[in-house]
Amino acid sequence: MDPALLNNHNINNLKKSGVNLHIKNIYTKLAQEDLDGLLVSSPANISYLANFTSRDSYFLISKKENIYITDSRYTQEAKKHLQKIATIKKSNGSIFRIIADLCRDLGLKRLAFEERYLPFAEYKKIKEELSKKGDLIPTHDLVEELRQIKNAEELEKIKKASEISIKALRFIKDFISEGKKEIEVAAEIERFIRYNGARSSAFDIIVASGPNSSFPHHLTSQRKIKNNKPVLVDIGVDYLGYKSDLTRVFFLGKISSTVRGIYDIVRRAQEKAIRRIKPAVHINKIDVVARQYITQKGYGGFFGHNLGHGIGLEVHEEPHISSKGRGVLKPGMVFTIEPAIYLPNKFGIRLEDIVLVTQKGCEILSGTLHK
Amino acid sequence: MDPALLNNHNINNLKKSGVNLHIKNIYTKLAQEDLDGLLVSSPANISYLANFTSRDSYFLISKKENIYITDSRYTQEAKKHLQKIATIKKSNGSIFRIIADLCRDLGLKRLAFEERYLPFAEYKKIKEELSKKGDLIPTHDLVEELRQIKNAEELEKIKKASEISIKALRFIKDFISEGKKEIEVAAEIERFIRYNGARSSAFDIIVASGPNSSFPHHLTSQRKIKNNKPVLVDIGVDYLGYKSDLTRVFFLGKISSTVRGIYDIVRRAQEKAIRRIKPAVHINKIDVVARQYITQKGYGGFFGHNLGHGIGLEVHEEPHISSKGRGVLKPGMVFTIEPAIYLPNKFGIRLEDIVLVTQKGCEILSGTLHK
Repeated sequence: MDPALLNNHNINNLKKSGVNLHIKNIYTKLAQEDLDGLLVSSPANISYLANFTSRDSYFLISKKENIYITDSRYTQEAKKHLQKIATIKKSNGSIFRIIADLCRDLGLKRLAFEERYLPFAEYKKIKEELSKKGDLIPTHDLVEELRQIKNAEELEKIKKASEISIKALRFIKDFISEGKKEIEVAAEIERFIRYNGARSSAFDIIVASGPNSSFPHHLTSQRKIKNNKPVLVDIGVDYLGYKSDLTRVFFLGKISSTVRGIYDIVRRAQEKAIRRIKPAVHINKIDVVARQYITQKGYGGFFGHNLGHGIGLEVHEEPHISSKGRGVLKPGMVFTIEPAIYLPNKFGIRLEDIVLVTQKGCEILSGTLHK
Repeated sequence: MDPALLNNHNINNLKKSGVNLHIKNIYTKLAQEDLDGLLVSSPANISYLANFTSRDSYFLISKKENIYITDSRYTQEAKKHLQKIATIKKSNGSIFRIIADLCRDLGLKRLAFEERYLPFAEYKKIKEELSKKGDLIPTHDLVEELRQIKNAEELEKIKKASEISIKALRFIKDFISEGKKEIEVAAEIERFIRYNGARSSAFDIIVASGPNSSFPHHLTSQRKIKNNKPVLVDIGVDYLGYKSDLTRVFFLGKISSTVRGIYDIVRRAQEKAIRRIKPAVHINKIDVVARQYITQKGYGGFFGHNLGHGIGLEVHEEPHISSKGRGVLKPGMVFTIEPAIYLPNKFGIRLEDIVLVTQKGCEILSGTLHK
């Protein structure tokens, strides 16, 4: 984190001024890179800057004025929530003209945009509308970098989202039984989480029984659960915009020694990775520790995906915990640790927890849940 | 629809050859525009061409070879479903290099891409990797145009998705009562649809009671339902990838004459629009009919969004039924008709049905539901 940026853990000043800390940090970054404004098009980035669940909108950030551009479906709620930090501009289809006109009116000569979240067609249209009035400059990670470090308010929401997921996994343990369909298990979880404070699930709940568990992202099906086979359940909830993501494997009846053996390898791999988590450790090291252990045990070829991913306003965000991951761990980062072994057409085991990097080590936000 | 394209209603040949009709139609379009291949990046477009629910993947279509590029999470299921129509290529992070290499190996000099579904950053990377080996050509609507006309198999799925929604709205009528929270209503619907054949909900269910109904896309909240106020419920389900989208307004206790009056205007506006639906009618006309009626009644300023949208593999797709809509209605198109009046901070009424354009007029797929 750039030392010029305001301390993200201190949000006391946030409510006093019209413009919040997150936006002020973007002002700093823009000034450092000689940019006049940033067109934010990622819904999660807008939600972060506006502290408001944004959909189908654009947010133009500049020191001169912040403009929130949306359509009639969202103008009323935008006015309610954003009036202190932004001017609300209602579009009638001509968003790109509006953006170009704003650049001219505000004198923004160098407008940055989020190259990962602007489709080529929109880039082209804005460029055409701007013509020679200003430059359109691709950027990435301006907002995402800030989002990696969670403040107290964000942590509270992620913890609450995790708690609801933990409760749901405890609840569903008793429901899972022979003859129930995968989709029925998902149905009960979807209902339960909403009675327990969640806004919605954060992604399609995965219930994968028997051989279906060998597909890392199985589409929950009409398959009936059978005894003596593992049932993998991967759930996440949305609590005021912030997400959780947890996976557990349940067993009915007898567990074969093969399944038990694989389960233990995955659990040990996770323990080994989590034990290494503390500030200043290289991100790729965490992945490598778990992967090496799984490889030593002979299953390296059956663990294809990354060890984990950051979580917050999105289910998958920075930092990605992979063997190619760059940079080091910092206090306030929150991510999953989810080693797995998938044996094609047989079964798969994945264990997923959420971890917060603290000043001295880490806290497992889902630590109270059985494994 | 271009006459050179194969008849989309006839899918009998589809299973015989390795390559299906949808892909063959893309071959025709590519040949017409002197293109060697199309890089499909829209998940819905890929799902349409591959007849398989695709996620986080790219599909390169060319007469020489079709290549499905995905990562380890999806390779096993891709192999299971797509082996007859495509080569499965597992990426390890270097997707853009893979695409460039494929262009070189297959001799694709003019590669089209979907400009609305490729972020600027990805465009830039592929272009860099391709360097002078080939041209990257922006296109839009190549697949979307085909998707507008549903075949028998698709219609069956949309009808099934609609039926499940209708059932759910009937079921929830009895559940809605004073003191229940909006989110609890959503919870029960989420559970119900999965016990009745849906894979998931197609979008976050909207339950908007009292003044919340004045927000067109209200985020379902912890608010308790009160007597004598409308409760708007907007739901859609996913059935084997195909979506439904229906809205009804429920009343508890007394309905004020104002609310009743607005409700009747919205219902009449919907009837008037639906009555005009038949092949060869200009799309914008349908919107205009409903909008003019609402305007005549004095509420034109309170109906901001379009009258409807196409529905299929996506909840919102072509054709958009708006006053700026181009082209004419054609048999096989499926879209919503959803006039509304929103009185800020008071209440809102929206009625939404799904309509299929037939040879002579239209069929209301959700016609059996109360209004």
